[in-house]
Amino acid sequence: MSATLEQHLQRYVILSSEELHHFTEKLQRRTYAKGEHFLTEGEPSRYVAFIREGILRYYFIKDGEERTGQFFFEGTWVADYFSFLTKRPSEMYIDVIEDADLLLLSYENMQTLYAEIPKIERFGRLIAEQIFIGSHLRTTSFLRESPQERYLRLINERPKVIERIPQYLIASYLGIKPESLSRIRKRIWRDKHRS
Amino acid sequence: MSATLEQHLQRYVILSSEELHHFTEKLQRRTYAKGEHFLTEGEPSRYVAFIREGILRYYFIKDGEERTGQFFFEGTWVADYFSFLTKRPSEMYIDVIEDADLLLLSYENMQTLYAEIPKIERFGRLIAEQIFIGSHLRTTSFLRESPQERYLRLINERPKVIERIPQYLIASYLGIKPESLSRIRKRIWRDKHRS
Repeated sequence: MSATLEQHLQRYVILSSEELHHFTEKLQRRTYAKGEHFLTEGEPSRYVAFIREGILRYYFIKDGEERTGQFFFEGTWVADYFSFLTKRPSEMYIDVIEDADLLLLSYENMQTLYAEIPKIERFGRLIAEQIFIGSHLRTTSFLRESPQERYLRLINERPKVIERIPQYLIASYLGIKPESLSRIRKRIWRDKHRS
Repeated sequence: MSATLEQHLQRYVILSSEELHHFTEKLQRRTYAKGEHFLTEGEPSRYVAFIREGILRYYFIKDGEERTGQFFFEGTWVADYFSFLTKRPSEMYIDVIEDADLLLLSYENMQTLYAEIPKIERFGRLIAEQIFIGSHLRTTSFLRESPQERYLRLINERPKVIERIPQYLIASYLGIKPESLSRIRKRIWRDKHRS
């Protein structure tokens, strides 16, 4: 079942049916097949997209290798929010891991909504706070935790990632080689069955 | 000369003198001497503070060493915004590098202001976006740049840090030992005078 924008918005603000209509009018629906890119390095991130269905991922290239920054599932927004806000060219890629059905909101339409509906301003503040919180957690995890600790946190807090994302991309997300992830998984399994 | 909150707010929103009065009523003024702590690990960050005068820094302890996260100067806000938003105990310290004169806003008062003045909601959104942008720049700098590149960026983009912060703290901010910073400075000086 696809995620609905209405339910998502209602978690943050109560909109009248007129306001909701006004919001949805500003969106463009677009579908992407697995493997397609939603965003490519060098172009500005002109849209934020609400994910009705599918999984996306952002990554960047360092030393010739893909480094996975984050995965995005149904019911959340995806964008290079830094590029979107600053209008600088994106330094990352966003590709599609599972066929995606998206609702796109342009920067200009977002500003219009902020100006016209004060409750959307609140929604925007709460989303910006959430994005900051996510970015902060990701950074401190790299600064403070070992790859094994990051993997255990993923199992506990984001089982969706474990269930639906291929191992080699999970390894890339943890900042390690696939072989290292295999070793970590074996070690965890052994520790679990020893105790 | 001390920074004024009025000027700061006006960069984001136009408030009536009544709204401005209502905002400033919610603030508590507090001064801190150099070396004092504004926040200690383990306590929640209950306030955001506008810096009228002074410099603050946040840091955390890793492997027994202080790692400097950021410096905050007059005319900006300081807090562990993650702890402030999530109400989790802070994982960092904020100390005073130069005697500070602060205006404190509590979480509860901030929510009241958001509810009462829609323009403050906009201000809150813009500040949350700025904090995200700052956090993102800091993270990508660590992921993508060498210590020397980080130092050159600091010289170009934040000369205040170079002018007013002691060398050993700049080294900590760059994630290197003071000796390494000395070597980088010598190298830069040499390259400059060779060409």
